[in-house]
Amino acid sequence: MTTTPKGRSLEQKMDKIFYPYSAFVTDLKTLTSQIDQEFDAIIAIARGGLSVALMLGEHYDIREVYAINTIGYEGTKKLDEINVFNIPDLAGAKKVLIVDDIVDSGDTLREVLKVLETKYPKTSFFSASIFYKPTASIEPTWWVREVTQWIEFFWSEDLKD
Amino acid sequence: MTTTPKGRSLEQKMDKIFYPYSAFVTDLKTLTSQIDQEFDAIIAIARGGLSVALMLGEHYDIREVYAINTIGYEGTKKLDEINVFNIPDLAGAKKVLIVDDIVDSGDTLREVLKVLETKYPKTSFFSASIFYKPTASIEPTWWVREVTQWIEFFWSEDLKD
Repeated sequence: MTTTPKGRSLEQKMDKIFYPYSAFVTDLKTLTSQIDQEFDAIIAIARGGLSVALMLGEHYDIREVYAINTIGYEGTKKLDEINVFNIPDLAGAKKVLIVDDIVDSGDTLREVLKVLETKYPKTSFFSASIFYKPTASIEPTWWVREVTQWIEFFWSEDLKD
Repeated sequence: MTTTPKGRSLEQKMDKIFYPYSAFVTDLKTLTSQIDQEFDAIIAIARGGLSVALMLGEHYDIREVYAINTIGYEGTKKLDEINVFNIPDLAGAKKVLIVDDIVDSGDTLREVLKVLETKYPKTSFFSASIFYKPTASIEPTWWVREVTQWIEFFWSEDLKD
């Protein structure tokens, strides 16, 4: 188990870690204690980021909570590629927070940032996630837990029985 | 002075009901037991619908989970009006489920349906919510709980303290 100044790791006992709603609430409180900016809008990277966006939107009383979609597909020549679509209208937004549940390879967040920064060059983008893998190609502005395992999120599991 | 039964019942109607995550899970299981269709995409009416969309997307293994935004504003001449924006790309989707946490006046769902059906006349739209007020101007295809009180959803409350 490693501890970093920015967050703490879950105990690494199994390949999969179940992440319950109660831990999510605790971690969002940690996340909001770190975030030292105000935003005009929040963009969730669907699907997982929807969870974070909903609760931060309520917390910060931001009605401008949007979603953005991505599809990853195998490129024929070089690296896997990611298609970003359903880009929200950010006209007039100066500071925007992009949220996801986990920054894993980092490729999705990097591509989302690239697309948004190209389309809205006057907007400042920040990013936040609950989980962050140290092997990711980009580190979000704020994150709570460093992790190496596969996370089973409550929203994927709790409707099963 | 006396308090009439009518007065007491009005007070009860003013009551707020806290809606915890555990009840949400139970109600989503009821909702999915009612839903007898398959969908190509799910659209959340932000913000509250994001909660339902995330979990149904996982349950039905639908990656096409989108959001749509609305702003209500007071019309100068007649009824209040609702502006619908960030309309997702539904090209190719034959059946789409629109979800919200609550259908209250019904005006938001009605306007979202109108905008989507106009833009995508070949797509069939269905709707689902956890809560439904009997005074609403439209009834969603599927809903779980009829309610008259104000609901304090867990995603609005659980980060407070």
